[in-house]
Amino acid sequence: MREDKNSHILDFLFRPRSVAVIGASNRLLTIGNRIVRNLQNMQFTGPVYPVHPKDSQIEGLAAYPSISHVPGEVDLAHIIVKNVQVPRVLEECARKGVKVAIINTAGFKEVGPEGARLEAELVRIARSTGIRIFGPNCQGIINADPEVNAYCNFTFTKPRPGYISIFSQSGGVGEVMNNRLCELGDGLRMYASTGNACDINCQEILAYWGDDSDTRVIICHLENIEDPESFIQMAQKVSEKKPILMMLTGRTRVGAQAVAFHCGGQLTGRVGDESLATESGVLAFRSLEEICQTARAFVHVKIPRGRRVGIITNTGGPGIIAADELSEAGCELPELSEATKNILKQALHPEAIVSNPVDVLATAGPKHFRAALAAMLGDPKIDGVLFSFVTPFFVDCETVAREVVQISAKTHKPIVCVVMTDKTLWGATLQIFRNAGIPTYSQPEIGAKVLAAMSKYGEKIDS
Amino acid sequence: MREDKNSHILDFLFRPRSVAVIGASNRLLTIGNRIVRNLQNMQFTGPVYPVHPKDSQIEGLAAYPSISHVPGEVDLAHIIVKNVQVPRVLEECARKGVKVAIINTAGFKEVGPEGARLEAELVRIARSTGIRIFGPNCQGIINADPEVNAYCNFTFTKPRPGYISIFSQSGGVGEVMNNRLCELGDGLRMYASTGNACDINCQEILAYWGDDSDTRVIICHLENIEDPESFIQMAQKVSEKKPILMMLTGRTRVGAQAVAFHCGGQLTGRVGDESLATESGVLAFRSLEEICQTARAFVHVKIPRGRRVGIITNTGGPGIIAADELSEAGCELPELSEATKNILKQALHPEAIVSNPVDVLATAGPKHFRAALAAMLGDPKIDGVLFSFVTPFFVDCETVAREVVQISAKTHKPIVCVVMTDKTLWGATLQIFRNAGIPTYSQPEIGAKVLAAMSKYGEKIDS
Repeated sequence: MREDKNSHILDFLFRPRSVAVIGASNRLLTIGNRIVRNLQNMQFTGPVYPVHPKDSQIEGLAAYPSISHVPGEVDLAHIIVKNVQVPRVLEECARKGVKVAIINTAGFKEVGPEGARLEAELVRIARSTGIRIFGPNCQGIINADPEVNAYCNFTFTKPRPGYISIFSQSGGVGEVMNNRLCELGDGLRMYASTGNACDINCQEILAYWGDDSDTRVIICHLENIEDPESFIQMAQKVSEKKPILMMLTGRTRVGAQAVAFHCGGQLTGRVGDESLATESGVLAFRSLEEICQTARAFVHVKIPRGRRVGIITNTGGPGIIAADELSEAGCELPELSEATKNILKQALHPEAIVSNPVDVLATAGPKHFRAALAAMLGDPKIDGVLFSFVTPFFVDCETVAREVVQISAKTHKPIVCVVMTDKTLWGATLQIFRNAGIPTYSQPEIGAKVLAAMSKYGEKIDS
Repeated sequence: MREDKNSHILDFLFRPRSVAVIGASNRLLTIGNRIVRNLQNMQFTGPVYPVHPKDSQIEGLAAYPSISHVPGEVDLAHIIVKNVQVPRVLEECARKGVKVAIINTAGFKEVGPEGARLEAELVRIARSTGIRIFGPNCQGIINADPEVNAYCNFTFTKPRPGYISIFSQSGGVGEVMNNRLCELGDGLRMYASTGNACDINCQEILAYWGDDSDTRVIICHLENIEDPESFIQMAQKVSEKKPILMMLTGRTRVGAQAVAFHCGGQLTGRVGDESLATESGVLAFRSLEEICQTARAFVHVKIPRGRRVGIITNTGGPGIIAADELSEAGCELPELSEATKNILKQALHPEAIVSNPVDVLATAGPKHFRAALAAMLGDPKIDGVLFSFVTPFFVDCETVAREVVQISAKTHKPIVCVVMTDKTLWGATLQIFRNAGIPTYSQPEIGAKVLAAMSKYGEKIDS
């Protein structure tokens, strides 16, 4: 795709063949230094051209006094110079044939009317020359695809390749989510934090990721939606192909006021209006932890066809917490069919609770879990299973884990795994899930929330 | 206290001078083996007397054929024999002078009418002999006080001494919370999971912990409150002395039905009725993660005198998330006084947002944070501060952390710290907080929820 001259304009942003850094620097701890080093550290697959008025070398790379001095073609340029110089540099980029400019520099719309005028000037240049702008006042992008390795960004997270793409209006929020996914051992596909987004906006990037087959799920953080109509239209279209998990902040009066300050006081769009989520058919979240945990599930766990959940637990309490959460999030916990109940009564301890939740009891071993999972998954009234497991010291937990992994691989219904344990002592048990690519959740309420979100999406695409 | 013969009856449970284990075993992976080993591993400070019909040694300790054969006085006895044998063994314990019996054995009220009759028999024995019962169908207790080290329980968590006491009707839920607190590096004071609670109940333990000066905060998980009147009365009384964080499960129809099954189908009390929390003046939670994180804060962070919060952030987005959460949880984010604003305008970058939240900008260094914290804490309109910090690579984050620690030590207002970072690369920064005993939160919404809960409690006790 990177060889195709007629490719999508955003290929120049996310799959650039070359990157210039205008405002590159040898001074450590500057953005102009960090971006060059990030590109080097991630082993960006194309040439990097630092631009510096005086230095002829930046971080060991040949540097050029201006973008016009750069010998090769430049797909993407970072602009990190002082805000008043940005329009001139942007024009120079356009003349050079740069396709997209990431303007990291701040001091535009977000600082008031004067900055807004400067930003309008950038938009004018873009419209007249055809160069596209990402930003200003933004972090940049990441493409963790090993064919590209574009770390065009000054954040600290080491992205590992994966299937989750993150759009975040706020760089800080994007960074927190990206970092959390890394911590959880999950990878990133692409990342974009647009800041003021004066030109390339969320819907354009959503459309691009909608067509990117390795983006399996999209996380989207927004504070202000400038053009709600077009956003809704695009989000609807893309979420038919893959789930969009959205966090819309500024839903309270003080929150909205803070968004206004954050955006320079000029709000023209809809802020923190969560009804946008319903209108767009996306999944709404209010917690960064929940949005990250749910994204992981969409990558690794099958999507349920409906909202009828069966719970299998080996301790009553966590099963009840899960039942409360699932039920409140709109899932059903149907009574099991008589056939299923009979199978369970045969297979489990006589004191086991054969209902929904099924309480197999703490003493249940691998064969009990196998039987309970098979019976639940075989029940036509159940669309997905929440497996709630506190690891008892007297049970062969590793074999239980292997059973779950095996059954998971064979069924078309999802099993969301809540594994409550000491991560050190039961490390081998957790590793069995990890090796099979099955995420585990440490608390029943989070597993339940994840399964509820998946059910909501599953029901939508199945209808 | 342990020498005082006239001490509180629950001293025999939580500070026993000696423990017998009736049903102790040399067979690994049995409860009777695990309890003996837990007592040994935690170095219980009194003698342990295993009771076994045949073996004369259990885990290296002299074992006795019955409780009456035990040579010394026995404060506390575990009973792990078959359910139908429990009444006989309990009577024997009473004759021996045992003060409290932890009946771990299951197969009572929770399995139906026959079990309920057996349980009623236990209560009758207790009433007539004076022996007190903890359980049946329960895990047991822990007292992590190094003077006692009573691990009278078969769970896996290694308790470290601390200031949080956990009451949990469900052993599974108690274990998840205890384990999470350990993971977070926080300690436990006492732990009790009562199961069927036929005699010693939640309110009696709450009263005891209310008088225990080293219990600074109580976590309480309940599925069913048998005697709501007396519970409310006790919870009100205790929560005037220290915060009670309560999780009441079974709030939905399916949840309540699961509680009924879990408790043997005979519900006489109030299930999942969260209005109990309001009536009792305790703080209600629906998430195990939030209850644990809030408990930590009550141990380490000062309690605010009211609900007026100031936010200091170095990235807009997380500050807005915190503003939404705080505001929704009933906190106010007052506009700063003119005096405070003037101080901030002088001290911060010219582009900084001088409002509430204060956005000091990502480039803010130690002196900017110091100034912002001093100004906010000095503002009489502010009761507590949420410090929201994404660690930029170009900022001396360790010095920022040291500033926060120093200021925290001097002020009587709380600073709740949200530190969003790569835990490996910024390990030294996090360690500065940890060394000072200041918990840090990884997501703005959790920090906000914690501060909101503290504010609610602070306002109550201050009024």
